[in-house]
Amino acid sequence: MSQPSIPKGTRDFSPEEMAKRNYIFDTIREVFKLYGFRQIETPSMENLSTLMGKYGEEGDKLLFKILNSGDYLKGITDEELTDRNTNKLAGSLCEKGLRYDLTVPFARYVVMHRNEITFPFRRYQIQPVWRADRPQKGRYREFFQCDADIVGSDSLLNEVELLLIADEVFNRFGIRVSIKLNNRKILSGIAETIGELDKIVDITVAIDKLDKIGLEKVNEELASKGIPQKAIDQLQPIILLQGTNQEKLETLKTVLQGSEKGLQGVQELELIFNRLNVVGMRSELELDLTLARGLNYYTGAIIEVKALDVQIGSITGGGRYDDLTGIFGLKGVSGVGISFGADRIFDVLNQLDLYPKDSIQNTKVLFVNFGDKEEEYILPIVNKLRQSNIATEIYPEPAKMKKQMSYADSNKISYVVIVGEDEMRENKLTLKNMITGEQKQLIIEECVKVLSS
Amino acid sequence: MSQPSIPKGTRDFSPEEMAKRNYIFDTIREVFKLYGFRQIETPSMENLSTLMGKYGEEGDKLLFKILNSGDYLKGITDEELTDRNTNKLAGSLCEKGLRYDLTVPFARYVVMHRNEITFPFRRYQIQPVWRADRPQKGRYREFFQCDADIVGSDSLLNEVELLLIADEVFNRFGIRVSIKLNNRKILSGIAETIGELDKIVDITVAIDKLDKIGLEKVNEELASKGIPQKAIDQLQPIILLQGTNQEKLETLKTVLQGSEKGLQGVQELELIFNRLNVVGMRSELELDLTLARGLNYYTGAIIEVKALDVQIGSITGGGRYDDLTGIFGLKGVSGVGISFGADRIFDVLNQLDLYPKDSIQNTKVLFVNFGDKEEEYILPIVNKLRQSNIATEIYPEPAKMKKQMSYADSNKISYVVIVGEDEMRENKLTLKNMITGEQKQLIIEECVKVLSS
Repeated sequence: MSQPSIPKGTRDFSPEEMAKRNYIFDTIREVFKLYGFRQIETPSMENLSTLMGKYGEEGDKLLFKILNSGDYLKGITDEELTDRNTNKLAGSLCEKGLRYDLTVPFARYVVMHRNEITFPFRRYQIQPVWRADRPQKGRYREFFQCDADIVGSDSLLNEVELLLIADEVFNRFGIRVSIKLNNRKILSGIAETIGELDKIVDITVAIDKLDKIGLEKVNEELASKGIPQKAIDQLQPIILLQGTNQEKLETLKTVLQGSEKGLQGVQELELIFNRLNVVGMRSELELDLTLARGLNYYTGAIIEVKALDVQIGSITGGGRYDDLTGIFGLKGVSGVGISFGADRIFDVLNQLDLYPKDSIQNTKVLFVNFGDKEEEYILPIVNKLRQSNIATEIYPEPAKMKKQMSYADSNKISYVVIVGEDEMRENKLTLKNMITGEQKQLIIEECVKVLSS
Repeated sequence: MSQPSIPKGTRDFSPEEMAKRNYIFDTIREVFKLYGFRQIETPSMENLSTLMGKYGEEGDKLLFKILNSGDYLKGITDEELTDRNTNKLAGSLCEKGLRYDLTVPFARYVVMHRNEITFPFRRYQIQPVWRADRPQKGRYREFFQCDADIVGSDSLLNEVELLLIADEVFNRFGIRVSIKLNNRKILSGIAETIGELDKIVDITVAIDKLDKIGLEKVNEELASKGIPQKAIDQLQPIILLQGTNQEKLETLKTVLQGSEKGLQGVQELELIFNRLNVVGMRSELELDLTLARGLNYYTGAIIEVKALDVQIGSITGGGRYDDLTGIFGLKGVSGVGISFGADRIFDVLNQLDLYPKDSIQNTKVLFVNFGDKEEEYILPIVNKLRQSNIATEIYPEPAKMKKQMSYADSNKISYVVIVGEDEMRENKLTLKNMITGEQKQLIIEECVKVLSS
């Protein structure tokens, strides 16, 4: 048969890559736990009724659907088949799909388990998601999300905690980031103030281009989107908004004085900034009005994290959604969450070469195999080392010395133990340090000591 | 909308269940690493061309197939649709499927990456697999396998290592097990000796019933399967095989003296038993001729682990397959592997209540929230505790004291810190032990000390 392959947009992970990925997952998991988040997992497959209609029309198309088992054509007429209405037909052929993100399954989880959960519920979840997106650099069809959410509490302290988590995670990684913060209510307030409530997206997209195209072009773009000159005039202080976060907030307070919602957004941000100041953040924190991520979804804070030293999209994002579980019939449960993109963080750490050198924990020592007699002699010693928690291998067959040493080399094993006639007679081991080349004859206890350190 | 649900045969895992599952995965992973195995991961989806035909006709039916994206009817004629040949049509509608086990994807991995791999390759893999089986107690449609395999070495030392791993894993779990061992070559030898090569399965199935139905009925069953009286007579010493493993091997040597293959199987087992004796196993190890697991698949050793104190199928299994990668065009690569069934082990640990009490690591301390002023005051203290690696929460809003205490209770948080007017004035914290009810006023450093211990 021909050379096997894997589906496009998916990846195999080698032991070296797994070590790096585990470093990422472990770091994020440790911080989540430190902040009191508790892990759940949900099935890879959800009923399509749970997933459909939650990610927009485009999202529905990107869902991987699973063909029903058994006679999947049962109940479908010939007419329906030859009609070739693929969207409709898919609903008959498939009742399950692979999860598209962790948020909708979490909302479903909260509704199904609401009687077992103590609210506020701080949950984290680290699992793969699947999207039938066109694969490209940095975009995969199977990738991992690392989500932390708090549901059942309106308090802004939750936003503060999530921002502290982002600060802590990237500090541990050694990645310099800018954490950007916005509030949906401020965006609403701006649109309301200039009388263009339905143009929020156009406005934020245009403002975002200020650095690249300059004020004149931004104003031209706004006009081209049908925003009247008077409204554009009113927008000027917002387009040109600069200074510290506090200065920006002061400007906004003036501009938005006619919008109750806008002022509420400003107040929320003020409280968040204030609390964060008290604790002290190490990352740069910036009020960024161009942050319009998930605009139709978030109702309060919008969070995004950008790496400062690598050109890549946002590596973490989140925000508050006031009615997470309403789609499943449970009203009034507010949530706020943050999602770390493990695959992009993987790329950033690779580019900046920031993996700690000891993140890859290999076998510590390899016992060379000289044959039956020696094998029998060293097996209890190998066992003893393992009982001392030293990752130990014994080469499985008496291959040529060169082959065994080269095996140790390729697998980055730090030490090799050689036991031949002499060693057996003297009840000693020859321990070779594969990095320095140094060789020593030791008794077992000394050997355990060296290898444990 | 109606109450949401999840697909049958799948499960949500609560924080308590996740803690238990992580304990299982972590224990197995630690032992794998201790024995020098290196982790890989493969995609959840494989091309159907990789999966089909590898698990028998029944297995093909149990594969979850993924509907192609876009116009999945393209290239399919109306006739093909209305023909309703569901098997054939599935091949046109779907080109991908969810992995059914970890072995076939691993074989595919080895072939694709053979130039990057140093053989012998000791790999482990802990990932979910999916089967469209009829769900029932203890059988799920999504479940985790924990596999360790060594490929590219014929040495029996590999079998020895895998048996030591099984011994170590179940010793760590505190589960009393019987590790059963057989060899495909011995089964072949028996069938060859009595001239009934194609009846191996019937013979092992009948022998397996000795305890339940007695010798007479076993012989009747053999006769009913078309095995001649002479052959049944020859089988008597094997059906009645008893004694120590060594005694069994001696009997087999006599019975199988005419079969080269059979004797080779005996020799292999002798070497494995001998090596294991040198190291010393804690679990019971038994030569069990009725072990016929994966008969068409394994070519040498067959391994199975049974829990002694719980009625449940095998909780771990494995064996040697001499031509793992041949199905993908790479000949002559032998492998031997073992697979731990995490979901059954989960059930056994639950039934025997063997989870270590500290396997569930919760938040250590909750700060009660009295309002704005206190919140601002305690945030830096909370931060300090977290910097000292103490899992800390602050209740997100100034709810009633009773509600906050009950939150700590439900989440099994060991300590609560109370900071009100008095504590703020005196620069102290009141630390309450939620188990003993004991309460103390401490300065921060003392508090860190208590909580770190």
